[in-house]
Formats: sequence, structure tokens, C-alpha cells
Amino acid sequence: MAEKKKKELARLRREVTLKTTEIIRLIAERNSLAERIGGVKRSEGLPLDDERVEDELLRKVLREGERRGVERQLVVKILTSLISEAKRVQGLDPGGGGRASPMSILTKVVKLQRDGKKVIRLDVGEPDFPPPAAVVEACYEALKGEKTHYTESRGIPELVEALSAYLKSKNHFDAKSEQLVVTVGGRFAVYAAIASAVKEGESAMIIEPAWPAYREQIEFVGGKAISVQTSLEDGWGPSVEKIEERVRPNTRAIVLNYPSNPTGKILKPSLFREILEVANDHDLTVISDEVYDSYSFTPCPSILEGGADRFILTSSFSKTWAMTGFRVGYAVCDRESAEKIVRLASLMYTSVPEFIQYGAIKALESDEEATRNREQMRERIAVASLELDRIPGLEYYRPDGAMYVFPQSREESFDSSEFAESLLNEDGVSVIPGAGFGRYPRCFRISLGSPKEVIVEGIRRIGEKIT
Amino acid sequence: MAEKKKKELARLRREVTLKTTEIIRLIAERNSLAERIGGVKRSEGLPLDDERVEDELLRKVLREGERRGVERQLVVKILTSLISEAKRVQGLDPGGGGRASPMSILTKVVKLQRDGKKVIRLDVGEPDFPPPAAVVEACYEALKGEKTHYTESRGIPELVEALSAYLKSKNHFDAKSEQLVVTVGGRFAVYAAIASAVKEGESAMIIEPAWPAYREQIEFVGGKAISVQTSLEDGWGPSVEKIEERVRPNTRAIVLNYPSNPTGKILKPSLFREILEVANDHDLTVISDEVYDSYSFTPCPSILEGGADRFILTSSFSKTWAMTGFRVGYAVCDRESAEKIVRLASLMYTSVPEFIQYGAIKALESDEEATRNREQMRERIAVASLELDRIPGLEYYRPDGAMYVFPQSREESFDSSEFAESLLNEDGVSVIPGAGFGRYPRCFRISLGSPKEVIVEGIRRIGEKIT
Repeated sequence: MAEKKKKELARLRREVTLKTTEIIRLIAERNSLAERIGGVKRSEGLPLDDERVEDELLRKVLREGERRGVERQLVVKILTSLISEAKRVQGLDPGGGGRASPMSILTKVVKLQRDGKKVIRLDVGEPDFPPPAAVVEACYEALKGEKTHYTESRGIPELVEALSAYLKSKNHFDAKSEQLVVTVGGRFAVYAAIASAVKEGESAMIIEPAWPAYREQIEFVGGKAISVQTSLEDGWGPSVEKIEERVRPNTRAIVLNYPSNPTGKILKPSLFREILEVANDHDLTVISDEVYDSYSFTPCPSILEGGADRFILTSSFSKTWAMTGFRVGYAVCDRESAEKIVRLASLMYTSVPEFIQYGAIKALESDEEATRNREQMRERIAVASLELDRIPGLEYYRPDGAMYVFPQSREESFDSSEFAESLLNEDGVSVIPGAGFGRYPRCFRISLGSPKEVIVEGIRRIGEKIT
Repeated sequence: MAEKKKKELARLRREVTLKTTEIIRLIAERNSLAERIGGVKRSEGLPLDDERVEDELLRKVLREGERRGVERQLVVKILTSLISEAKRVQGLDPGGGGRASPMSILTKVVKLQRDGKKVIRLDVGEPDFPPPAAVVEACYEALKGEKTHYTESRGIPELVEALSAYLKSKNHFDAKSEQLVVTVGGRFAVYAAIASAVKEGESAMIIEPAWPAYREQIEFVGGKAISVQTSLEDGWGPSVEKIEERVRPNTRAIVLNYPSNPTGKILKPSLFREILEVANDHDLTVISDEVYDSYSFTPCPSILEGGADRFILTSSFSKTWAMTGFRVGYAVCDRESAEKIVRLASLMYTSVPEFIQYGAIKALESDEEATRNREQMRERIAVASLELDRIPGLEYYRPDGAMYVFPQSREESFDSSEFAESLLNEDGVSVIPGAGFGRYPRCFRISLGSPKEVIVEGIRRIGEKIT
């Protein structure tokens, strides 16, 4: 190499090093400014977190990046890192922070049961129904027939086709096989949907109270969960205006879950449509988790009926056919998102067990069991409501669907976390405190996954404790 | 709020905005320097990628960050993003780039078979043996007994205990249940091991040729895969000096896989120990994927025998008991890593199907089948070697274990990707080209997952094509 070129290269590299250390210096200076801002806010009793200020900054910085040809995704990522770091030096937890996990109750319950104590389980998010006998037999046949090998990560073509036919008959939706992915449970479908729609530094909206996995998975992919609060007073229906207000410049998706876990709410089709319109206006992917759709007791709109420009439906075999322990779910979406979900499945676990996929085909034909499960759930909701009506200290929304009730204490200072702990220890009944689903200290979730008598006895004990 | 404080807050925020846009400006300037460096390198025919320069920069920048109190992880992450962006503007793919995926052959094979063409499958990484009958029956019993529910994400205690007893008898390793995690296949165990050891911007070492998932998973978590090349000439044994040389300031882990996919190599215990010492000296977590350990035909050292300060063993039921399609694997490690792996499993899929876990307990007792599978694989290696010896155009390392041979053409200009494609189309034999495992254009992988006659016929056709 010519001496001149060598020198030029060395000089350019020195400049790169200088620029880079200068960036680090600026980050340090930015941090000390953040510390001072934190000090002022603290002395004035202002909240340390200020989304409006963050968004304003993001807009400015994005414009600067665009003007200078720096990639948008990099700008978002770097700004997010800077804001997290600034929060860290201010002593703020940049994550969700301080949310109770429903798992802590679960761990205690399992321990108590191991120690021989009887617990009335109103906590578990799964029905106690048996799976269809035809599914069990189909799994066994497949096992004996050596269907015990790797399969396509998307799922075996027979199951994908059966699923497509099922959706056609149920939702009048014509899904090409390229739009379908069979996953290890609905949970993986939701994770993969979020991962395919939301990148690091971007955000996704959730309607709270919500299944905690949505927030956890959004944060896991480096995103931020923007929560829209709903209340019992509003019948757990979200306000379209509030949703629109909460959209931020880096918001990429909104997660819907109707019938809702934990409230049992089903949206009126008109409200559902309005939300989809907001999503369309802001280019959001609608992730619609319809895992409880077979437990619907008022008409439940599906994302498959249209209205969303870009969507990912997630669902599973778990509730409809009581197959939680089979771990089979699926996603329905555009080809590109489906391709991303297939890649994630392929990267992480190759495929759903082959013989289980053969069992799943049989499930899709098990209408009778699906109907029986639905009718049982309808009865359980009726029975639980009857019992809850007897407790003057509680108010609740009578579920339109799903398999939970989410009652709220009439007492302003009620602490459902303490209540759930004491209910478990003293009365042997397990429920999940409202903190597991958002900021709902006055609420707790009662699961209807157990037989009627168990539900009745559990709610009676709750009533005795509350009144 | 006092007017004065308000003004101060506004002023501080303006300064934050200024600092932030200045950071963006510096990134843009850094990019244009990178472009000029790229230009000089191109004109001189120099490689665009220069790890030594990157490492030097990382060290300087880390020192600067430390001096100024900026968190190490943030510095690593930002520098990685800047380097990626600089590569992007230079027109370089920041990822691995241009590696052939073995999946492309797989897709073609499946298509050909669907079209009714007979293919001799020497590509698939799974044995054709049936699973133990006792496992099949145990799954069925569990299914009928409604073992069809969610379980602990770590695995049911009965399986965890059985696994602990198994490892004690096999490896004389006393694993507490807190050190064990049952996963959806060995693949998820490897992903979770990598995710728990390597953060964004950090790196992990792999010994190539290697199973492509290692690199893909490292890159998926935002890390960089540092490859140490081995060669047939050196009997596929890695050089300890080379490993030590390749350790970079942000290297956190090394992935070992003996018996090796694709070479069949088993390291001498002394060499294995030396590698562990290098890992210890540099604080690397050793991720030892011992999924093929039951197909060992010379003594195969295990990470469980000691020598590594920090390790994660990954393995599975897939090869030992021919249970690929059951998707059960496991990890053995320190409590903290195990806790991280459990959290990932819980976040992504809750648990392995309950009835499959009951089947897995039976597998651990199925010594006879494990022995039969091992003996069959030993015979297949012998038969394949005999056939390969007849092909003068190929040389190969006779496998010490695992279920593959990785022959190399004696021809310098051999292109195994073209060869594999033509072998499939013209001769109906599928193998995986060397590019799937690293930079091995003269090699291809023959899987011994099919019966002897099929292997013999396949290798004969290869011989006819090559000579």
C-alpha cells in the first residue's frame, strides 16, 4: 500500500476514534443534565417520567437524523438507550418496575399443595375440562405410527390446511397457507407477533387490565408498553380518544384481547371497528389475541372480519378444546409477518411435536366438545355471578365471555395483593391480585377453570372475608 | 411551581435536546469518515472488516466511558450500533452475510418428494430409529390420565428429579433441581443458554465447521459470532492458541459441540481441558452442546466432569432415544443461568407438553434402546467409511462419534453447493453443502440418519459423480 494511503487511513481512523469518544463525552454530559433535571423535578414533586417531553425530543432527533442520513431505526435505538441511561442515573427503574407478577401467588400455591394443604384454585388460567378423546387417540396413533420426527416450522401441511378450512367455516376468512403458522402454544404466537411488529426502542399499546405476558414480551424485545387504562365504571371498555391520544411517534402496534383476560369484556363491534380505524390511521399492526373466542356469550368481533390494514391474529387450541398442556397455538397474518414468525419458531424450537400436530387436526373437528366446554363456561359464569351478587362489598362486570371475573372492592383503600395473600393463607382460596394485570389494587381475578362447586365454595369464602 | 424553577427546567431540557442532536450530528460525521475509510480500503483491495481496529476502538471507548461514569453495557451497545451503521453506509452487510442455509436444500428436497420424486435423504439431522415403546405408552397413559395441563416452566419435579439421577449415574454429576431446566428441544436450550450468557454488542466464540444455529442464535440476541476455523488437515481439532488469540474484549462465551455436528470429531480430554482453561482465563461461559454424547465411539469428555468455572450444558432426548419429534431438551448450569433460562421458557411457551414430560421420564430408563441406537450408529459409521474409502476424489475424517461424515473434495476448486444441487437434481441424493457450517466450499455433510442400505446407495452415487 502506498505510504500516502496508509497515512490517510491512519488519520481517518484517529478521527473516528475522536468522534466516538466525543459521543461518549456527550452522553456523560447528557447524563449530568438529566441528573439535574431529576433534582429539580424531585424538589418540585413532579413525576420523573415525562412521555410528552420524550416524544418531543424523539421527533426532533428523528428530523435531525433524517436530514443527516442516519437510519431511523438507529436513531430510535440510540435515543431509547440514552433515555434509559438518563433514567438510571436519576435512580429511576427504566423498566415497568414494581409490578406484581401473578407467578408469586402461583409459586406459593404450589408449595402449599406440596405441603399437603388443600387449596381452592381460582387462580389458574386454564379450564379443567378433559381434551377430546379423539385428540388423545389421534396422538397415540401418530406416536405408534412414528410421527415422531421434525416437521416444517410452519406446521405439517395437513394441519395448516385443516386450520385454513376451520377459519373459513368459522370466520369466513380465506387464509392461504403462507398466512398461517402453528406455534408452541398461543403464548409463542403472541411473542412472535410482538417480535415481528415491534423493534427495539419502538412501542406497542396495551389495554389494561391485561394479561401480563403482553407487557413482558413487549419489554423483552426492547420495546415500551404504552398502557391505556380502562375501568369497571366504564364497563372495561376503552375510550377511542384515549387510545388515539396515547399513540406515540414510535408506536408500531396495539394488542387487543377480546374476550378479555381478566375482565371477560367483549367489545361491541362498532367500538372494535373504531379502534381498528385509529390503528389504521397511525399505521399500527393490530395484534388480536382471540384465544378465548369460543367462550363468547355475546357476539364477539374478530379481526378476521376485516377492518384492519395490518393485523396478526393469535389463538390456540388451549381453551376451545381444553388442550393447554398440548402447547399448540397459531397465528394468522400477512405473508411477511408469517415468514418472520416461522423464522423465530425455526430458530428457537424447530417445530411443534409431530404427533401433537396430528392430534390438533382432530381437535378442529371436535365441535361437540367445543360446544360442551362453552356451555359449561356459560353456566360457570352464571353461577359465579349469582354468588358475587351476594357480596355487597364487591362490584363486578358480568363477563360477556372468557373464563374469568374481575371483581372490584367498593372500599377505596382495598389492597388486593394483601387480600389475596391472606385469602390463600387463612382461607385456602387462591385468586390473582389486580396488580398482576395493571394498576388495579382494588380488583382481583377469579378464574372459572374449576368445577361449579369449587367456584361457589371459593366465592363464598371470599364473601365471608370481605363482608 | 416557582417561575424560576420552571425556567431552569426548560433551559436544562433545551440543553438535553442540543446534546442529543449533537450526538446525531457526530454519528453522521462518523459515518462519512467510515465511507471515506471504505473508499481507501476498496482502492487498496483491503478487507473492509477489521476486528483488530474495532477492538482497539472498543477498549479506548470503554476506558472513556469508565472515566466518565457511563455504564459499560451502554457503551458496548452504542459502539456496536455505530459500527453496524458505519458498515451499512460502506455497503457492507453487518450480519454474517452470504452464508448458505442448509434449509434451502431442505425446502427443495421436500418439494421434490411432494412431486413424487424419490430422494435418498442424507441431509436430515435426525436418526430414523423409533422412540422406545415404553415412552410411547407412557405418553398415552399420561394423555388418558389428563396430564394435559400447564406445568412448571422448569419441568415437572418428577422429570427434573429423574434427570438429576440420570446425570448422577452417567456423569457422576450431582445437579440440584435448581440447576436443571427442561426445554422445548435441545435447540431452545442452546438459544436460552446463549441469551443468558451474551448480551447485545457482546460476542461468543464458535468452532467451525459448526451447526448453523449457534451463529444464528448469537446474532439473534444482538451478539457477534467469532469463528475459530478448523480443518480436515488438522483432524478438525481446534488450536488452543488460535482460540486464545481470537478472544475479544467483549467476548463472553464459547460454544463447544463434541461429538461434533458436522465432523464427528471428539476432542481428546487433554485438549478439551486446555480449552476450558483458556475460557476460565478470559471469564468465558462454556456452552457445551453434548446432544450427541450417546453416539460416542472414543471417550468423550463432558463439561460435567469439571474444569470450567462457568458452564451451561445443553442436551436433549432427540438423538439418544430417537425422540426428535417430541421436542424435549434440557440445560444443566449454575442456578442463576438456570433461572434466566426458566424465565425465557416461561415468557415464550410456558412449559413442555405435560404428557411428553411423563414420556421423557421413561426414556431416561430406556438403556436398551439407547444402546441399540448407539450400536446401529457405530455400524453406520463403519459402513459409510468403507464406501467413502472407495472414492479417491474425497478425503474425510473417520467420525469418533455423532451421526455425520464431513468429506472434503481433493479438488481445490470444488464447489460443494453446486455439487449438492446437482447431486439432488440429477442423482436424487441430498447432502448439505459445507457452506451451511462455515467457509467449507470443498466439504459436504452426509447424515447417517437413514438405514445402512440407503447410506451405501447414496455414497455410491456420490462416488460415481465425483470420480
